[in-house]
Amino acid sequence: MSDKPINIGIIGMGTVGGGVTELFATQAQTYAKRIGKPVQVSKVLVLNVAEVPADRKEHIADGVLTDNADDFWSSDFEILIELMGGTGAAYTFVKKALEAGKHIVTANKALLAKHGHELFGLAHKNNVSIAFEASCGGGIPCITALKYGLMANQIGGLYGILNGTCNYILTEMTQKNKTYDVALKEAQEKGFAEADPYLDVSGADTAQKLSILASLAFGVHIEGSQVEHIGVDILDLQDIQFGAELGYDIKLLGTAERKEENGPVSVKTQPCFVHKSDLIANVHGPMNALSVYGHAVGHTMYYGAGAGRYPTASAVVSDALNIASGWYGAAFAQMNLTPDCNDPAELVAKEDIESRYYLRFNALDVPGVIAKVTTILGNKDISIAAVMQHESNPGEFTPIVITTHDAKQGDLDSAITEIEALKEIDGNLVSIRIAEFASDS
Amino acid sequence: MSDKPINIGIIGMGTVGGGVTELFATQAQTYAKRIGKPVQVSKVLVLNVAEVPADRKEHIADGVLTDNADDFWSSDFEILIELMGGTGAAYTFVKKALEAGKHIVTANKALLAKHGHELFGLAHKNNVSIAFEASCGGGIPCITALKYGLMANQIGGLYGILNGTCNYILTEMTQKNKTYDVALKEAQEKGFAEADPYLDVSGADTAQKLSILASLAFGVHIEGSQVEHIGVDILDLQDIQFGAELGYDIKLLGTAERKEENGPVSVKTQPCFVHKSDLIANVHGPMNALSVYGHAVGHTMYYGAGAGRYPTASAVVSDALNIASGWYGAAFAQMNLTPDCNDPAELVAKEDIESRYYLRFNALDVPGVIAKVTTILGNKDISIAAVMQHESNPGEFTPIVITTHDAKQGDLDSAITEIEALKEIDGNLVSIRIAEFASDS
Repeated sequence: MSDKPINIGIIGMGTVGGGVTELFATQAQTYAKRIGKPVQVSKVLVLNVAEVPADRKEHIADGVLTDNADDFWSSDFEILIELMGGTGAAYTFVKKALEAGKHIVTANKALLAKHGHELFGLAHKNNVSIAFEASCGGGIPCITALKYGLMANQIGGLYGILNGTCNYILTEMTQKNKTYDVALKEAQEKGFAEADPYLDVSGADTAQKLSILASLAFGVHIEGSQVEHIGVDILDLQDIQFGAELGYDIKLLGTAERKEENGPVSVKTQPCFVHKSDLIANVHGPMNALSVYGHAVGHTMYYGAGAGRYPTASAVVSDALNIASGWYGAAFAQMNLTPDCNDPAELVAKEDIESRYYLRFNALDVPGVIAKVTTILGNKDISIAAVMQHESNPGEFTPIVITTHDAKQGDLDSAITEIEALKEIDGNLVSIRIAEFASDS
Repeated sequence: MSDKPINIGIIGMGTVGGGVTELFATQAQTYAKRIGKPVQVSKVLVLNVAEVPADRKEHIADGVLTDNADDFWSSDFEILIELMGGTGAAYTFVKKALEAGKHIVTANKALLAKHGHELFGLAHKNNVSIAFEASCGGGIPCITALKYGLMANQIGGLYGILNGTCNYILTEMTQKNKTYDVALKEAQEKGFAEADPYLDVSGADTAQKLSILASLAFGVHIEGSQVEHIGVDILDLQDIQFGAELGYDIKLLGTAERKEENGPVSVKTQPCFVHKSDLIANVHGPMNALSVYGHAVGHTMYYGAGAGRYPTASAVVSDALNIASGWYGAAFAQMNLTPDCNDPAELVAKEDIESRYYLRFNALDVPGVIAKVTTILGNKDISIAAVMQHESNPGEFTPIVITTHDAKQGDLDSAITEIEALKEIDGNLVSIRIAEFASDS
């Protein structure tokens, strides 16, 4: 075993940073044994040393923590762990480090979803690597599984619960019949949701992660901004309850599918109904999971905590150890897995994405209206799987639920416009995708 | 991209071999792109070329298939895929290949559970590597996840459904109230179980896989023969039904736990009750899953097909590609993860393994007997969690179910001996472990 330790620099000392420095400090001997050489955190850059809470400094050795950028950049670390987040200073610093020949570990999905193509290319150009396991699925080693463990496969589909905040809210709504507003408020009180929850509940965070995973899975280049996202904030409790009657659970899924080898890829993030018997329907609370369908392996799934100090630190530190041991950089240099090695994805047009749907609308004079609605759907080539209507009082508006077989989103959208124009319909028609997984078809 | 292909030799052309050669033939371009160099199957050794079925030869190029061992061994492959199985000729051939400086890919859990220490050591000595993802969990990349993705963790527990035959039988018994004999017969008719099902249903296969996974997870050396195994063949349908009433599903689990860093490891394979709300309880039919608890990441789970032509080929071919790309050998050489780099495990003595238990016995004169039984248990320091008894007719034997809190197996065994000696008890007392996962405690 070599005695010279591999030095690691860290930028940012938030909650994850506290976990990362704790792991390196308390597991130093174990890590040295596992990778055959010692590693140490040699420098940590923060905005203001005085503002770092005590519990995050506890495992940082004397002289390591600094708010002097020159001091940080002139030190001799080989691996930079970027824990700032965002696409501003983090982008500048990661570029600077790559150009200085340092490897990068990052949990920053926003950065990779926006600048991944450029940054991965810069890493290749400078003979260093970027490891990013923590950017998707928190502590779940799903990127490692996808890149190496499933390499023999043509991937047909990815279906991910990639945001713990949303899954917590949906679990509370489903299991305890809470409204969205109540569930969100509780999530905020418990620290599962930010004061401004937009990035999470809008599906934007999931869309960023999906772009990273889909780029790897399909060997293409997809940016986060190319993934349309619909959030959980549009959901009405009654739809979750009707879905449950039909045998479905609601999940916010990032979905990416490719029906033919090298064919176009469809990507989208939206609330989806999944069959209660699907394993992913049993992923509750703030936990995450990624289902991956490979043409050889079939259905696989990866499950774990998608956020939090220690789960995220688990992925960050594992990445750093894999780089420090030497193999990760060799794999990064040799293999053509990252977006910079691949062409921009040919994406299925939004209106051509096919899926099953759940539709719900409030209608008067039920028998006549069902005939009209199904005629409109039939004219758009959308066939009906099931119709559900509870007993109602004559003359009152009553909710009617219809599930469809596979339909193109464009056809569905134009059918919805026609249905909403019917005078017997009160208000908007609600449509929710029913996810049928790749291997089911 | 270098043009010189990496040559691969294969020994054995069973059902998995057919899948492996098909993947290499049909995905050659994709693989070359992914790993930056072409790979090809250059030689395949079988016992008798004439006996290879047509569908397994379909994707093998002319001149590649041979039953001439000299022809095979004198050819210039760099990677040997061993698909013979067993610990006889496979052992000889793997040793021969390692000594000749060839990397090994194997799905052979029996071989690694018995000779892993020696073979991994031989690989290190000869500067080559052994990849074995397919040996545990079929197509699930759980070894990749464990070795690299969870490297930052102290592993506290492994809980694996590692045998699809057993899980299929238990699912049929649970969901369709079939007896063990009926479920086994159907599994055999459907090809999920061998004519001689011993290795699967006895838990021996699971024990072999557990020894491989636990060795990696805990950084120790455990041989397959050190893992005690109780099979599914001892199960009575009524216990599955009583368990269901109490909120449990039955699974054959390989379990490995370590309560303290570098402390002793407990390993065992046995039918276990798991809470229906645990994700692993929702793994049905022939599917496999491995739950891993890491001290930083918490609960993670890996799910997929544990056997079959294409799932197993997925893992075998991915392994070969990872070796061909160059990084796997570098990781194998640098890191100290395999049993040859680690000490023999200190194992928790069988009688000291602690767990909750389900107990069922048939008793006459119920009130008195429950008092006697609970007194015996109390005297052994075993406390009761629940008691269940259905209405019965006076004077008849009636089943009584007791669940316990954590108890040492030695204490339980001696309590059982005393209970079975009570004159009010008819026949044997049945005990089934209730699995409480590492993070629950």
